[in-house]
Amino acid sequence: MTITILGHNYIDGQRSAKGSITLQSLAAASGEAHPAAFYEATDAEVDAAVAAAVAAYPRYRKVPAEKRAAFLEAVADEIDALGDEFVTEVVRESGLPTGRIVGERSRTSGQMRLFAKVLRRGDFHGARIDRALPDRQPFARPDLRQVKMGIGPVAVFGASNFPLAFSVAGGDTAAALAAGCPVVVKAHTGHMVTSEQVADAIERAVARCGMPAGVFNMIYGVNVGARLVKADGIQAVGFTGSLKGGRALCDMAAARPQSIPVFAEMSSVNPVILLPQALKNRGAKIAGELAASVTMGCGQFCTNPGLVIGVRSPEMSEFVGQLKKAMASQTPQTMLTAATHANYSAGINRLRQLPGIEVLVTGDATGQQAAPHLFKANAALLLDPAAPLEDEVFGPATVVVELADREQLLAFAARMHGQLTATLQAERDDLLAHQDVIECLEQKVGRLLFNGYPTGVEVCDAMVHGGPYPATSDARGTSVGSLAIDRFLRPVCYQNYPDELLPPALQNANPLGLLRLVDGSMTQAAI
Amino acid sequence: MTITILGHNYIDGQRSAKGSITLQSLAAASGEAHPAAFYEATDAEVDAAVAAAVAAYPRYRKVPAEKRAAFLEAVADEIDALGDEFVTEVVRESGLPTGRIVGERSRTSGQMRLFAKVLRRGDFHGARIDRALPDRQPFARPDLRQVKMGIGPVAVFGASNFPLAFSVAGGDTAAALAAGCPVVVKAHTGHMVTSEQVADAIERAVARCGMPAGVFNMIYGVNVGARLVKADGIQAVGFTGSLKGGRALCDMAAARPQSIPVFAEMSSVNPVILLPQALKNRGAKIAGELAASVTMGCGQFCTNPGLVIGVRSPEMSEFVGQLKKAMASQTPQTMLTAATHANYSAGINRLRQLPGIEVLVTGDATGQQAAPHLFKANAALLLDPAAPLEDEVFGPATVVVELADREQLLAFAARMHGQLTATLQAERDDLLAHQDVIECLEQKVGRLLFNGYPTGVEVCDAMVHGGPYPATSDARGTSVGSLAIDRFLRPVCYQNYPDELLPPALQNANPLGLLRLVDGSMTQAAI
Repeated sequence: MTITILGHNYIDGQRSAKGSITLQSLAAASGEAHPAAFYEATDAEVDAAVAAAVAAYPRYRKVPAEKRAAFLEAVADEIDALGDEFVTEVVRESGLPTGRIVGERSRTSGQMRLFAKVLRRGDFHGARIDRALPDRQPFARPDLRQVKMGIGPVAVFGASNFPLAFSVAGGDTAAALAAGCPVVVKAHTGHMVTSEQVADAIERAVARCGMPAGVFNMIYGVNVGARLVKADGIQAVGFTGSLKGGRALCDMAAARPQSIPVFAEMSSVNPVILLPQALKNRGAKIAGELAASVTMGCGQFCTNPGLVIGVRSPEMSEFVGQLKKAMASQTPQTMLTAATHANYSAGINRLRQLPGIEVLVTGDATGQQAAPHLFKANAALLLDPAAPLEDEVFGPATVVVELADREQLLAFAARMHGQLTATLQAERDDLLAHQDVIECLEQKVGRLLFNGYPTGVEVCDAMVHGGPYPATSDARGTSVGSLAIDRFLRPVCYQNYPDELLPPALQNANPLGLLRLVDGSMTQAAI
Repeated sequence: MTITILGHNYIDGQRSAKGSITLQSLAAASGEAHPAAFYEATDAEVDAAVAAAVAAYPRYRKVPAEKRAAFLEAVADEIDALGDEFVTEVVRESGLPTGRIVGERSRTSGQMRLFAKVLRRGDFHGARIDRALPDRQPFARPDLRQVKMGIGPVAVFGASNFPLAFSVAGGDTAAALAAGCPVVVKAHTGHMVTSEQVADAIERAVARCGMPAGVFNMIYGVNVGARLVKADGIQAVGFTGSLKGGRALCDMAAARPQSIPVFAEMSSVNPVILLPQALKNRGAKIAGELAASVTMGCGQFCTNPGLVIGVRSPEMSEFVGQLKKAMASQTPQTMLTAATHANYSAGINRLRQLPGIEVLVTGDATGQQAAPHLFKANAALLLDPAAPLEDEVFGPATVVVELADREQLLAFAARMHGQLTATLQAERDDLLAHQDVIECLEQKVGRLLFNGYPTGVEVCDAMVHGGPYPATSDARGTSVGSLAIDRFLRPVCYQNYPDELLPPALQNANPLGLLRLVDGSMTQAAI
């Protein structure tokens, strides 16, 4: 069976192709175009998609958490059911290997199921009750009850590098749908065939679960993002991509008559810091593992380690030699899109031209392939307040720096920009001897790793895929893991409201069995 | 004993007065100047205040929650100890009555104590633990642990209308200090004598508890706000004031190289909706109570009811007559500052000139006094998409609207801008008959009141003093109540970190006795 690709926009459960501009899906490796034409949404279609989400919101937000959970599980089932032909198409579009795509499919459905679990667990409601104190002096206290509800329709800009897990049915969509917010997804032009099939899967789940059709909408196009972010009905934006792109969306959202929050995951070089004992004990092993982490998935990860830092020592010099060898043995791989490849080339050229940099590993690659690169930079370049080494180069490249001493390491940690992660390759004694460095890093990152490598972002309750600017636009959020739902919730308080008309989460009998904060104490009891 | 007022800026526990511009504190009623000169902070002083907060942050954020709680309680004790002379000065500066100031002093210390309780309860840590699954296929899961920490130094812009509870030691300062964030307060020019005495009280508590001096800083001036918000070290802003002022700060913060969140509580007209049965049963009572709510504190409350709406009926007409009588019987009161008075006059004049408006109650007032005003507007004006009746007039004025029918009421609720509150004067049957209206309102407000009046904002766990734009700049927060701490926290994740080096909130033994989310379930057990 051949998959039919229509290339029409998804608006309120219908297909719409009113525009005259069409786009094509290009194979990552060959550049060959898929026969389908994808219709860029017209202004009217963007507005209609937003209007559909706005219309669906009052109904969808009232769908009980249990039913929203069942809906997310239905989406998960539909995604799992996308078969071999689907995988083949994703591989064609993204250039990513089959095994990776099969794994990412599971991760994507798993993410939906995690949010279903969050909905059933119920802590997302944030239920808080302060009962009336009619006899309190000098004033009586009224009955006050707080619960969190969805913020409204959310615009989702999927990432290129996770065509499933961070795209149409990715983390932002899952979190928004879980929160009770309809979505309008802007399909990434790098994987439109993939997007359409995932959108179909979601629509099947919408129909199966009797959700309002406008809960999910998707538009195609290169020129549709600004109108989407500026649309009155949109109440928040989720974005994963470049600093330039994310910042542009933030600026647009801030300049709206009603400014709205943008959760943009943007730019990080994820420093890996090699502490002395660890280098001594296992420098060679780290070099091999690090080269694998830098080049995995052609280095196309938000958490790719783009900076490797150690203090000068015989072991560090040896490590640099080992890392050079390990990086040189890596082979070129296909990048996601021609634009990704062009950006990688530009990033490599920028690094080459920095003062105080040395090229240790370079290579030629044909077509859309990217050769691994290793640079060595001097301490001055790392400590430069303009932080030229912290401009992310998206791809299989990293920069190693030998610092003169521990003070330079501390100075770097104190000066470092916000990052998604920082990793310490360290033995226990190293940690004890570098508490000051660690305390600086804690203030700059979303996730601090002890050994291990930052690539590989577990989807769970404790994950933070976030961090201070420019890693993200809002350090208070995460775009991976169950806490991501909080970005799309806001609290509402009911004062002296009749019990039977309150949302179930706040009713005296506690029909949802929630753990609630009642008069200052957590309790699962009815009141 | 006469209180000595220096008028110097508070920077890192020292006093500083390097500038040449000085300001004076004017009595609200008489306009008479206090003899003290208040030195506007120079650019260097603004920077120094921020630098002090930045320097204090690494130490202060590591102060255990229990010690931060004791510090907040020390601040509370010092505030409670501010005596009669202090109250006299606050009354002079603000024009607010003595009883109100005495009550507000308790509210301010009570707020500090509430956050101390939150710190001891420990749910603010948001501790989440996902233990390692070394045998999981296809990949092992690392050990991941999440906790919330302070976002960094916070700039606080106090409100004019709560010289204690929303100012130097007000809700934003309490929430930021509780979160582990040092503050730089911009003292409100309307109550600088008050500010200085409260700052002294905080400094005494800082010294008594051995906190780093830079945890609290305060600057004077009319031209210092922009530099403060743009300062690199500031990581968030708390503001209570006008839409224009709040929006300007938001725009500045968004345009920074590193954009930061601004929590601005700005503009709300807090509609009171009169439903038919309630009008029938107790229209006269509501009229009297509402007039008292509108004019209490000279109408200078964020939650002042500026819009009163009912559907045309004999009872509604009667109610309008009763409200007119009740409003006409209210006497002029002194406003906070000359600027507040000028804004009130401008607001009244703007309302007068709207098409479809009628003046029911007006009056002259001498000097800084404001006369209560009641307007009646037609439905077209209320339903106007430009929402001219939703521009807040800060003072003892309100607008009553008689709608033609229930459909107009629903249309208003659907079109209404974001508000801090909406109030339903309703019997149970009214609520049942207006579920559609209520569902619209829920989407637009932070707090929904059933009967009662929106003035009077309880400081407790369940309070939401927030709401969609333009009520605030970020509907996901509240500036009153214990949830306010969340605005200044961000999550951090530790991966595979040695147990003894983890923050106590995340250690296996659970030394803080927290309720934690461990492997997807809430538990207080050690692991």
